[in-house]
Amino acid sequence: MEPIRPLRLEDGALLLLDQTALPAEERWLRLTRASEVAGAIRRLAVRGAPAIGLAAAYGLAVEAMNGSGVLRERVQRAAALLRSTRPTAVNLSWALDRALLAFEREPSAAALVEFAEELAGAQLRQDQRIADAALEWFPLGARVLTHCNTGPLATGGAGTAGGAIVAAARAGRVAHVWVDETRPLLQGARLTAWELGRAAVPYEVVTDSSAGALMARGLVDLVIVGGDRIAANGDVANKIGTYALAVLAGRHGIPFVVAAPTSTIDHDTPSSAAIEIEERAPEEVLGATAAPGASARNFAFDVTPAQLVGAIVTDAGVMRPPYGEAIAQLRASAALAR
Amino acid sequence: MEPIRPLRLEDGALLLLDQTALPAEERWLRLTRASEVAGAIRRLAVRGAPAIGLAAAYGLAVEAMNGSGVLRERVQRAAALLRSTRPTAVNLSWALDRALLAFEREPSAAALVEFAEELAGAQLRQDQRIADAALEWFPLGARVLTHCNTGPLATGGAGTAGGAIVAAARAGRVAHVWVDETRPLLQGARLTAWELGRAAVPYEVVTDSSAGALMARGLVDLVIVGGDRIAANGDVANKIGTYALAVLAGRHGIPFVVAAPTSTIDHDTPSSAAIEIEERAPEEVLGATAAPGASARNFAFDVTPAQLVGAIVTDAGVMRPPYGEAIAQLRASAALAR
Repeated sequence: MEPIRPLRLEDGALLLLDQTALPAEERWLRLTRASEVAGAIRRLAVRGAPAIGLAAAYGLAVEAMNGSGVLRERVQRAAALLRSTRPTAVNLSWALDRALLAFEREPSAAALVEFAEELAGAQLRQDQRIADAALEWFPLGARVLTHCNTGPLATGGAGTAGGAIVAAARAGRVAHVWVDETRPLLQGARLTAWELGRAAVPYEVVTDSSAGALMARGLVDLVIVGGDRIAANGDVANKIGTYALAVLAGRHGIPFVVAAPTSTIDHDTPSSAAIEIEERAPEEVLGATAAPGASARNFAFDVTPAQLVGAIVTDAGVMRPPYGEAIAQLRASAALAR
Repeated sequence: MEPIRPLRLEDGALLLLDQTALPAEERWLRLTRASEVAGAIRRLAVRGAPAIGLAAAYGLAVEAMNGSGVLRERVQRAAALLRSTRPTAVNLSWALDRALLAFEREPSAAALVEFAEELAGAQLRQDQRIADAALEWFPLGARVLTHCNTGPLATGGAGTAGGAIVAAARAGRVAHVWVDETRPLLQGARLTAWELGRAAVPYEVVTDSSAGALMARGLVDLVIVGGDRIAANGDVANKIGTYALAVLAGRHGIPFVVAAPTSTIDHDTPSSAAIEIEERAPEEVLGATAAPGASARNFAFDVTPAQLVGAIVTDAGVMRPPYGEAIAQLRASAALAR
C-alpha cells in the first residue's frame, strides 16, 4: 500500500488532494499558479497547519516556474497573496518567510522548488521520528482510540498520531482503531477513516460519546491523539473532546499519549490557564437538522491538564511527566543549536 | 407559555405532533383509526417508551369511536396491530393490556377513551412528581447540562429530566441549559432544543464533546439526565455519552442526577454487569458524510455505575446512594400496595 502524499510536485504543477471532496471522491487538483494555490488554501481544499505551510511553499515554486513577468516581483506578490489566505496560521508565515530567504540567496524558480521539496522531506522525516518514538506505546494487538484527523492529510507528511498508528499497524501491533467521528466537522469520520481505509488498517468509526462505553468494556488499550498547542508545563490544547478522553482513560488505567512535533510547544505559555478557548461559528454545530432559530455554542478545542497525559511523543523523542523540566531542557538545547 | 401536549384527543381524533417533522415544522397528525396510529408509531412520528404506550391507548380509543363492524373484534384486531409496531417496547404492551382489561370490564368506546385519558393524566402527574422532587437539586441561577431528549416529546406528559428543567426554570432557578446535541440521532439538537425554545428556557446546543470544557471553565452547576433502565444496585443504563458526563461531573464536583420513573427500575437486574449494550445500525453514525465503504459501530447506550450517581429522582421521591437498600424498599412497598 503506497503512503498517501496529499501534496506533490509533478510536471511543473502542484498535485493537491482536494480534502473538501473527501471521502466521497479522491479529486486531485493540478495547480500551476500561486493564485490557484491560494484559492485552494482559502476554500480548505488543504487544511492542517503543516500541510498549509507546505502548500504555500509549493505555491511559490509553481508560480516561479509557470508565471510570466519579472520573477522577483511575481514571487513577492505571490508570497503576499498566499500569506493572506489564513491569517492566523503560524506555519504558513513561517514557511513563506523561509522560502523567501532561500529565494534571496538564489533568486530562481529552482531554488523555490528545492526549498519546497526540502520542506516536504523534513516534514516526512519529522513525522517518521514521531512514529518511531511512539511505537513502544502500542502493545501487540493494540485496540487504539483516536480523535480528529492527524494523518497525512493534516501534515502533508506521514501525520502525527495518525502516522504513529499506521506505522504501528505496519509493525503488526494494531488489531483495531476506534475512530471518533469528531463533531462538529467530522474530521474523524471523513478524513481519518479514509486514511486508515487507504492504509488497510482495520478501524470503526464511533460517536464521540462512545469512548466511555468502549473503555468500560475493556476494548481500548491506548488513546493517542495530536496536540494543537502544548504549554510549558505540558498542558495540551487539542480538538474539543480530548480532555474527556484523557479523564476516561485515566479512570480505566489506559495510557493516554499525545503525539506532536516540538514546534507545537509554546514555551511562552506557562500553563493552560493562559490558553484561550477558540469558539467557532454555531452553524457548524446546528447544521441542517437543528430547530430554526436554535442557539448553539461551538468550542473548538479544550485543554487536557499535564497530569492526565501519560506521554508527549515528539520528533525529539518521548517526554514523560512531570513535563516542565523536559520541556525547559528542550528549549535550552534548541537555543544551543541555533 | 402553554405546555406542550404532543398527544391529545380532539373531536374523536388523536392529534399527534409528528416528531419526524420537528424541529423544522410543527406538523400535527389527525388520526381517526388504529391503523393510522400504528403507522405513526412505526415510522417514529411518536417515540419515547411512555409516549408510545399512550399513543397505543389512544389508538384503541379512536378505533372504537370511528370504526365500523363488531366493536369487540375491531378492538382485538387493533390491539394486535398496535402491539406489533415496536415489539420490544414494554410500555406499549403494558398500556394495551390495561386498556383491554378496562374494555372487558365495560365493552364500549367510552371506556377506552376514559382509560387513555386517565393514562395521560397519570403520566402527567408522575412527571410532575419527578419535577417536584428534582427541584431541590437546582441552585438559584443554575447552569444545567443535559443529554438526549427527556421532555414532553419523550413521555407524552411533562417529561422526566426535561420536565424537571422546565419546572425549575418556571420556579426561577435556571439561568441556562447546555443541550448536548446527542449523536448520532441528534435528539438534543432536534427535540430538546425545540422543547426548551417553546418553553422559553434559555439554552444553547453544544457537541457531546463539549461537557469537559464547559465544566473545566466552571459553566455547569448540575448535570441532569433521564434513565433507560436502572439496576437494583442503582447502576443506570442511558443514552450513550451519559457515563462520560457522570465521570466528568464527578471530577469537577458537580452533582450528577438521574430523573426517571420508578417503572424504569429493573429489580431483576442486580447490576450493570447483567445489562447488555444495544447496538444499532452503523448507518446512523456514518450518515451522508463518511467515506464510502466506511465501517462504524453504533453503541446506543452506556452504563453509569451507581457510585457516580448523586441522586435518582423518581415519582416516589429522591433516592441517594447507596441505592441498593432504597431500591429494595421501593420494591417491598410496591408489593404491599398490590
